[in-house]
Amino acid sequence: MSIIVQKYGGTSVADTMHIQNVARRIIATKQAGHQVVVVVSAISGTTDDLVKMAYELNPCPAEREMDMLLATGEQISIALLSMAIAGQGHDAISFTGAQVGIETDRSHTKARIVNVKAARLEEALTQGKIAIEAGFQGVTDSSDITTLGRGGSDTTATAIAAKLGAELCEIYTDVAGVYAADPRVVAGVRQLKRVSYDEMLEMAATGAKVLQLRAVEYARNHGVRIAVKSSFDDSEGTLIGEVEETMEKAIVSAVTHDADESKITIFGVPDHPGIAATVFRELADEHINVDMIIQNVSEDGITDISFTVPGEDLVRGRAVVDGLVGTLEARGSACDERIAKVSLVGAGMKSHPGIAAKMFEILAEEKINIDMISTSSIKISCVISEDEVERAVRALYNGFGLGQEFQAKE
Amino acid sequence: MSIIVQKYGGTSVADTMHIQNVARRIIATKQAGHQVVVVVSAISGTTDDLVKMAYELNPCPAEREMDMLLATGEQISIALLSMAIAGQGHDAISFTGAQVGIETDRSHTKARIVNVKAARLEEALTQGKIAIEAGFQGVTDSSDITTLGRGGSDTTATAIAAKLGAELCEIYTDVAGVYAADPRVVAGVRQLKRVSYDEMLEMAATGAKVLQLRAVEYARNHGVRIAVKSSFDDSEGTLIGEVEETMEKAIVSAVTHDADESKITIFGVPDHPGIAATVFRELADEHINVDMIIQNVSEDGITDISFTVPGEDLVRGRAVVDGLVGTLEARGSACDERIAKVSLVGAGMKSHPGIAAKMFEILAEEKINIDMISTSSIKISCVISEDEVERAVRALYNGFGLGQEFQAKE
Repeated sequence: MSIIVQKYGGTSVADTMHIQNVARRIIATKQAGHQVVVVVSAISGTTDDLVKMAYELNPCPAEREMDMLLATGEQISIALLSMAIAGQGHDAISFTGAQVGIETDRSHTKARIVNVKAARLEEALTQGKIAIEAGFQGVTDSSDITTLGRGGSDTTATAIAAKLGAELCEIYTDVAGVYAADPRVVAGVRQLKRVSYDEMLEMAATGAKVLQLRAVEYARNHGVRIAVKSSFDDSEGTLIGEVEETMEKAIVSAVTHDADESKITIFGVPDHPGIAATVFRELADEHINVDMIIQNVSEDGITDISFTVPGEDLVRGRAVVDGLVGTLEARGSACDERIAKVSLVGAGMKSHPGIAAKMFEILAEEKINIDMISTSSIKISCVISEDEVERAVRALYNGFGLGQEFQAKE
Repeated sequence: MSIIVQKYGGTSVADTMHIQNVARRIIATKQAGHQVVVVVSAISGTTDDLVKMAYELNPCPAEREMDMLLATGEQISIALLSMAIAGQGHDAISFTGAQVGIETDRSHTKARIVNVKAARLEEALTQGKIAIEAGFQGVTDSSDITTLGRGGSDTTATAIAAKLGAELCEIYTDVAGVYAADPRVVAGVRQLKRVSYDEMLEMAATGAKVLQLRAVEYARNHGVRIAVKSSFDDSEGTLIGEVEETMEKAIVSAVTHDADESKITIFGVPDHPGIAATVFRELADEHINVDMIIQNVSEDGITDISFTVPGEDLVRGRAVVDGLVGTLEARGSACDERIAKVSLVGAGMKSHPGIAAKMFEILAEEKINIDMISTSSIKISCVISEDEVERAVRALYNGFGLGQEFQAKE
C-alpha cells in the first residue's frame, strides 16, 4: 500500500472547525487506499502568548528552554487532531518528535535533522492507524527537545516521507500552490503545475516563501516528490520533483523577489590576496548568511567589496565589518537597507543565454537602476532599490510572458 | 550538601508576577546552601481551553491523547520558570517527566509511578544548577506520555525527594498548611504544626484536600519528610513525618469532612456466603472506589448491604448494582447522593476508646442522625445528611477542643 505524508500548517488547524476539516481530508486519503502519516504545526497564534510571557520573564531566554516552551504548540495540535479523527470514527495515534525519533543536532531553535527513526510510525501504519506526528520539533542524542526553526514542519514532513519511502509528500498551506510571481504583487498570477527541485531551491533562496529551502534540499537529496496544495479547496496544487517530471518546458518559470535584504559595502580596501577570505571567514564564524558578493575591478590597487545579508543579520554583519576596517586598512564602510532583490528562475535558462540581456532591457525600459547582479545556471538576480521592486516584478512577469503556460522561445 | 525538593501548584505560577516570586523563593533556598529540585504544575487555567477544544472535537477522547494534550501544561511551566530563574541570574534547567525518567504504568490519565531514574536531575545538581521538573506527568516503557491524575504533582515531588534522598519535600500551595478542620467551615481554625503520615493519610482519605493520598502514601513508604506551606507568605507551614516527629500529643488532631460521597444500598439480599464477594468483586473490576461498607445483621436470612462511593463513580456503581439485583435475588436497590462523611483523625485515639462515644454524643446533642459508622485505629467516620455536615464539623471542632494546641485528656 502506498504511503502519503500530509503536512498541515498552523492556519489549517486554526480552530476546531478547521481541525475537523483537516480530519475529513485525512480520512478521505485513507479511504482512497493509502497509508497516511500527518505532520502538523502548532495552531496559529497559540504560542504567541507564551513567547510574550517568556520575554517578560527574561529578555534573553536560553534557547534550550525556548524550544521546551515552543514544542508544546505542536504537541497540542497532534493530540487534538488525533482526537478529531477518532471522533470521526477512524483510528489515529499522535507522536512527538522525540517519540518518533526525529534526531537533530544540538543547535536549539534552528536544529538540523541528522536521523529519522520512524519505527513507531511504521508500527502505527501496520496496525491500520493514521499516524499524527508533531512537526517543527526533534530531539538530541541527550534527549533534549529541539525545534527546527522557521518552516521546520515542512522539513519534518519531507524527512519522514524520505524515511518511509512515501509516494508523495503533500504540503497543505493557505495558498493553492507555487506561483510564477508573488500573488500579492501580480494580479491574476499564473500557478505553476510542476517545478523542478532546482527551480524550487532557487525560488526559495530568492524570496518565494511557500516552501522552506531546507525542506526542498532534503526532498531533492532524497528524491521525495512534494505537492504544495491549499487545505481550503480541492485544487491540484503544484508538484515539485525531478526535472523529467516537470513537463512544462518554460525557459523562465517564475519571477521572485525579496525585500528583506540589506547591502553592506567596504570602501577603499587595498586589493591584495586574502582580503575577501578574511572578511567572509569572519562573517561565517558569526553565522551571518551572506547572499550576493560583488568585488569591483581594482583601480590603483584599491577596491570596494559589497555583499548582501538578510535584514535580521544586518546589525551583526555591520559590527563585523566595522571591526575589520582598521585591520584591512580600508577607507570605511556603509550599509543600505533600502534594497531588494528581484530574480528570474527557470530550468530552461541554462541553454538560453539571451535571458539576462532581456531582463536588463526590461528593467532599463522601466528606468530601474541595477545595483548588483548575480547569476547561476538557472537564475539571474538583480539588486535594485526597494521602492521599485514591485514594479520590476510586474514588468518582468509581463515581459517574459509568465502568464502563459508555454512561452515563445527567444 | 542537602537537597530540598520544592513543589509549586498552578496558582503559585498563575502569571509572570507569580512566576518571578516563585523564582525568588527558589533562589533564596539555593543561596541558603541547599541543592534545589523544583516540581511545577501547569499554570492554573491554561489547560481549560484545551480540554474544551478536545471535547468539542470528540466527546470521548482517547485517554492517551488526553495525556499528550494535558502534559503540555507542565512543559510550559517548567520552561517559563527556568527562564525566570536565569533572568534573575541563576542557572536552571528544565526537564519533562520523560526526560527525567518518571516511569509509570500504562493507566493513562491516572498512571502510577513504578520507577524514578532522576540521573539528569543529579547531573544538573552536580553542575550547580537548579533543576526544574514537570509535575503530574510520566512516561511508560513504550515512551508514551502519561499523567498521574489529580494532585499528581505532589506525588512527583515526593517520588523525586525519595529517589534523591532529599532532606525535605516542600509542597507550596495556596493555603498555609494543614488545619484542624476545613477553614471554609470553621472560622479561625487552628493550623497544625506537625502531623504523622498515618494521620495525614486518614485525613486525605476522609476529605482533606491539601495533599493527595498517593503522595502521602509514597512519602510514608519512603520516609520522605513533607512540609506543606503557602507560596504567598513565609509562614512555617505543617510538617508531615514519622510519629516521633509529631510533637503534638493530641488525641484528636483534626476533623475532616467530605460531601462528595454517595450511598448505594441493595435491599433484601438472601444472606448466604459469597454475596459480598460477588458485589465488591464486580465493583472492583469496574474500577469503582468503594469507601465504607455496611452489612446489617441478617433477619430471617435476608440482609441489606450499603456502601459509599465517590460522587463521580455513582452512576457506574448504580449500574453494576442494578445488574446484580436479579442474580442475587435481592429485593431492589437505592442510592442517596445527599450524604456526607464527617471524620475525627488522631494518632492518640488508639489508646483512648472513649473518643467514639464522645463523638456520637456531640452529634446527638446537635440532633444529627448517624447513618453509617466506620472506624480505624486512628479515625472514626460517620455518614450523616449532607445538610448537616458543616454544623457537625463545627460541633466536633469545638467539642474536642481542636482550637487548643494541647487538649485535655478524656
